[in-house]
Amino acid sequence: MAMKKIYLAGPDVFLPDPHAAGAAKKHLCQQYGFDGLFPIDSEISVADDESLAFAISRENEALIHQADIIIANLTPFRGPSADAGTVYELGLARGLGKVLAGYSNVSTPFTERSWQHSGHGAMPEDSDAHLTDRDGLTIENFGLHDNLMLEGGIYLANGIFITCDAPPEQRYTDLSAFEQILKQLAERI
Amino acid sequence: MAMKKIYLAGPDVFLPDPHAAGAAKKHLCQQYGFDGLFPIDSEISVADDESLAFAISRENEALIHQADIIIANLTPFRGPSADAGTVYELGLARGLGKVLAGYSNVSTPFTERSWQHSGHGAMPEDSDAHLTDRDGLTIENFGLHDNLMLEGGIYLANGIFITCDAPPEQRYTDLSAFEQILKQLAERI
Repeated sequence: MAMKKIYLAGPDVFLPDPHAAGAAKKHLCQQYGFDGLFPIDSEISVADDESLAFAISRENEALIHQADIIIANLTPFRGPSADAGTVYELGLARGLGKVLAGYSNVSTPFTERSWQHSGHGAMPEDSDAHLTDRDGLTIENFGLHDNLMLEGGIYLANGIFITCDAPPEQRYTDLSAFEQILKQLAERI
Repeated sequence: MAMKKIYLAGPDVFLPDPHAAGAAKKHLCQQYGFDGLFPIDSEISVADDESLAFAISRENEALIHQADIIIANLTPFRGPSADAGTVYELGLARGLGKVLAGYSNVSTPFTERSWQHSGHGAMPEDSDAHLTDRDGLTIENFGLHDNLMLEGGIYLANGIFITCDAPPEQRYTDLSAFEQILKQLAERI
């Protein structure tokens, strides 16, 4: 049986040494019997009338089409939510009927992170309170780890979502939740 | 010919009066010959073993399946990027082969917004400089309005992306870019 391919989505591509980050994830994939596809690994060929950015987008979408599974690094990124590119890719994989998995290296709930992001102090004692941000917009209060569409989509796809608390300086490099997902995926097969 | 259905994705659902926001968008849709589907319009029936959050996610995904087109409000939301739920839905719609459209009511480029979010001062004069955030992670520098996967996906789908500069207090309610999209969609049909 051919090895299942896993698309490795995440802000890991923005790390100072993204190739090392990709290699570490691909190595773990192999240990569990999977073939990891890391975005920046593919040779980008830019068509004449195309920008580099859109060529990268095209190549990444092609990798997701090839993959059987996506593991999205949904660790909060420059704000209370996950990296936008990663979230887009998770949605794309859902639309294509792939196996979905995601993890976050921050376990503080989304509600609390959004509340803090809005410059408020401690969370209100009433856990059912209607919470709003600085602009008066509602803050979701469902005990989830990001906007409900993300964890909801993973749930609907019968996928896997895991959080852990990595030390702040390893927030984007810690692979313990990632490895737990690989273990669960390997057990499913 | 049946009216084309447009799924109205955006953080508009978090506005103080989301029903009014949805009604305004649906009214404009009708003026251009479209049927607008707004997330919170559907009656949510929560199954026994299901949380309300996941029921909402399920209903929203069902609406996107029903729609022919998605118009995503990609205005920056609590950080440099768009609302995570909206971005997920854009990706889902891409995977399902829908017509994609998006708008942002903030025209400042993503690079500049990410740079400012990281607490840096003015942008470096060298426009090709390698930019990083507080954690040393690369800031994309492609002259786009969000992570390249978003505008890239819309481009690959031959969709429509429009930005404008709404007054700050109308950042989440201004519908001029939204209406421009409707106009272009109507011309295509």
